[in-house]
Amino acid sequence: MTANDPSSTSLQLTADGQLRHFLTLDGLNRALLTEILDTADSFIEVGERSIKKVPLLRGRTVVNLFFESSTRTRSTFELAAKRLSADVLNLDINTSATSKGESLSDTLLNLEAMASDMFVVRHSQSGAPHFIAESVTPGVAIINAGDGRHAHPTQAMLDMLTIRQHKGRFEGLKVAIVGDVLHSRVARSQIRALNELGAVEVRVIAPATLLPRDVESLGCTVEYDMARGMKDLDVVIMLRLQKERMEGALLPSEREFYRLYGLNREKLALANPECIVMHPGPINRGVEIESAVADGPQSVILNQVTNGIAIRMAVMSMAMGGQMAERSRRQEGRAQA
Amino acid sequence: MTANDPSSTSLQLTADGQLRHFLTLDGLNRALLTEILDTADSFIEVGERSIKKVPLLRGRTVVNLFFESSTRTRSTFELAAKRLSADVLNLDINTSATSKGESLSDTLLNLEAMASDMFVVRHSQSGAPHFIAESVTPGVAIINAGDGRHAHPTQAMLDMLTIRQHKGRFEGLKVAIVGDVLHSRVARSQIRALNELGAVEVRVIAPATLLPRDVESLGCTVEYDMARGMKDLDVVIMLRLQKERMEGALLPSEREFYRLYGLNREKLALANPECIVMHPGPINRGVEIESAVADGPQSVILNQVTNGIAIRMAVMSMAMGGQMAERSRRQEGRAQA
Amino acid sequence: MTANDPSSTSLQLTADGQLRHFLTLDGLNRALLTEILDTADSFIEVGERSIKKVPLLRGRTVVNLFFESSTRTRSTFELAAKRLSADVLNLDINTSATSKGESLSDTLLNLEAMASDMFVVRHSQSGAPHFIAESVTPGVAIINAGDGRHAHPTQAMLDMLTIRQHKGRFEGLKVAIVGDVLHSRVARSQIRALNELGAVEVRVIAPATLLPRDVESLGCTVEYDMARGMKDLDVVIMLRLQKERMEGALLPSEREFYRLYGLNREKLALANPECIVMHPGPINRGVEIESAVADGPQSVILNQVTNGIAIRMAVMSMAMGGQMAERSRRQEGRAQA
Repeated sequence: MTANDPSSTSLQLTADGQLRHFLTLDGLNRALLTEILDTADSFIEVGERSIKKVPLLRGRTVVNLFFESSTRTRSTFELAAKRLSADVLNLDINTSATSKGESLSDTLLNLEAMASDMFVVRHSQSGAPHFIAESVTPGVAIINAGDGRHAHPTQAMLDMLTIRQHKGRFEGLKVAIVGDVLHSRVARSQIRALNELGAVEVRVIAPATLLPRDVESLGCTVEYDMARGMKDLDVVIMLRLQKERMEGALLPSEREFYRLYGLNREKLALANPECIVMHPGPINRGVEIESAVADGPQSVILNQVTNGIAIRMAVMSMAMGGQMAERSRRQEGRAQA
Repeated sequence: MTANDPSSTSLQLTADGQLRHFLTLDGLNRALLTEILDTADSFIEVGERSIKKVPLLRGRTVVNLFFESSTRTRSTFELAAKRLSADVLNLDINTSATSKGESLSDTLLNLEAMASDMFVVRHSQSGAPHFIAESVTPGVAIINAGDGRHAHPTQAMLDMLTIRQHKGRFEGLKVAIVGDVLHSRVARSQIRALNELGAVEVRVIAPATLLPRDVESLGCTVEYDMARGMKDLDVVIMLRLQKERMEGALLPSEREFYRLYGLNREKLALANPECIVMHPGPINRGVEIESAVADGPQSVILNQVTNGIAIRMAVMSMAMGGQMAERSRRQEGRAQA
Repeated sequence: MTANDPSSTSLQLTADGQLRHFLTLDGLNRALLTEILDTADSFIEVGERSIKKVPLLRGRTVVNLFFESSTRTRSTFELAAKRLSADVLNLDINTSATSKGESLSDTLLNLEAMASDMFVVRHSQSGAPHFIAESVTPGVAIINAGDGRHAHPTQAMLDMLTIRQHKGRFEGLKVAIVGDVLHSRVARSQIRALNELGAVEVRVIAPATLLPRDVESLGCTVEYDMARGMKDLDVVIMLRLQKERMEGALLPSEREFYRLYGLNREKLALANPECIVMHPGPINRGVEIESAVADGPQSVILNQVTNGIAIRMAVMSMAMGGQMAERSRRQEGRAQA
């Protein structure tokens, strides 16, 4: 899928350009990305109240459809949905109906027939949420909670929200993404978003064995040497070393990786003094990042977690809003016909 | 248990004839079955709203007590309870307290003492929900979500609702149930309901090896040849081939079964042109039913799923209503004494 | 930890002496224990309503953080939280993020960053809830749902509530705790509470192999012979034989234990005629207690379960209240500075 694949654009946007699914950042323009960030900002305040509830999805049924288990991601979507007042159904599909030999497509048709309003989908195969969005009944919103190596767009957006909170803008920023870009779900989405929102440079820092072949075509510069890569940075985003996804011997050793690409105080000192440090979690302390950096004054790692709930509330409520607007149009269309 | 076992009648009905448990269709007369269908009809509309909530069970505690796991059935009961505004507790008893050596009876007493209002029970042994209903504290409603080979009464009622929606009546209808009647939880309940509601003929179509010995005593005719069996049908209900329950070699092969009893377009063409096609799901495509039929214009399989939520909302709210009426009478009785 | 460890006192109480965590009964004075019982009494009535809800924790996020699974305990906390109108997230940590190599401390920081208001913690290691309470962000309340052999303070408090309901007072009561005190989470908490509330004698009855070395220093008398121990009792609390925790051959046999320390009708007849019988459940019938006693007129075992929900509602709402009061003070402090 290219950076502006028109099919995914028309799939996830209504004719008016409103979000109706949230599958990928591809094809979302600066205005829409900014609308997501602004909506999330309004939900940050909800998380600080003692009554952390808004009625936007009251009486709606949100199904967490996890074909690949991830307690952390599922918990954030579950909390986001509950704070929007939705009813939540958690389905771990590995252990469920498919064991009776039912196809994915039949499972989905059944869940739709139960009057579900939204599926939050996590799948180990790239494109699964797109496939579901293409086949789903009109009115049901699909949210991508991570698919294969392809995308993890709510993670990328919570990173953008965190950058905007701390830097106040994207224009002129120099941002680096460090580490296992090859196996990362989120790096592509981050590069796309940073470019669209106006960062002046997105730099990827990694050994050649952990970079995809087409990496420069994603809209970034490449740096193999971390010391050089840290220069002038405003934001450094560390990636998690996806040990469980490494298929062969792409790395000499964890220790060697840490020596070359792990973020410690010495390397961080090479960046701008206000450079913020981000990481999607869970952290491998001493593998990608030194504890003194992860817990240090430049780290905004826990802000990312807090922002994750707000971003999920934002895309869920916006997609539901888009679905409702489209439904009204369909009903008007039928009334006039 | 015979078709009109007086003990189960008095167990599941109040002195006034209201539902207080929902265990079996045995002993429920046409008026009560029709009341369930009418109540469910009113909940169909709730499922179409954006706010799919009614406050009928607000503040009530519903415990899904699944001694045999079934994600699909549990999900429909969970959604039904949440749309009635109940609090839901899911307990998978295989992995729970009984592993500490506690008896079923002690587990139940404990759950009752937690002020539960309703148990939705699924068990691999026939009669388990009856047993629980006999021993439970007054005020707690038991809903049968499938017990052994005995009954699956909410499934049978959602089938009745689907037939009434599409045919407008039961009088004069010819209905066939096709396939593995021997291992089916639902066939007995379906036959009972169809007879009570006025169907002119209930036909069972299956090889002799997949029929119980007493099948005709259930109130149906028997046909071994599917071509003959399809004649003049208004409704054909396919059963799932319960492969996991087959204990021996009751079938020559799946392919042979499909050739003889699988529903394809050719066989369906032998029925009335408006004949509807039903299946409880999950579908074994190419084993009991051809995809072109399952997805075709005569199929109402997904309507069954939608109706499943409405039927479950209906029996849950009616049983709770019966329990409350009985409680009021008990309190009045004590006040007068 | 000694009976009045000042560090745990200051950890779980605000400067004004309000509860802000609920970790142990150590350091809680009679006034505060009585306040918990009185608050629970007011929730007993909530459990008897048809709408079993109060809005005290509406919009709050309660995380059940179970490092050691216990369906029974988790269910009571889940119901208590839902009846207080909280949103509940159940996390079984054995099967979750820690499998990705994340430290406990990082998991907690992440959950706090999701704007959780309360962690209900169960852990196989003594002191884990204290450790968490020491490191948690201000504003988040920790409730101990059982840690190692150390404490299970909500269980002890539901026992106190049950005694007060049936005896009307603690002053002058003679109470025995019988059985496996060595492996019991709750015996220490019970002894502490009974002494603080004014019981005249707390007696421990067990073989020497099932008693901790320092048992008398806990504030109890010791009796090895059950017949002598039953004399003049107002309350007898049987402990569960923690078979799964016995590491060596501390007992000759279950049968021998039952003969010597099992509570049967003969032994119970040696106590006061109004002596009540308690057990934390799940019961090992015929191991610690005869069925005729467990189900007999002096048994209040099921009242304990009902009271368990009310006690959990009480400590959750009181700790949340303490956190909010403290938060207000912090904000005032900042406003004045």
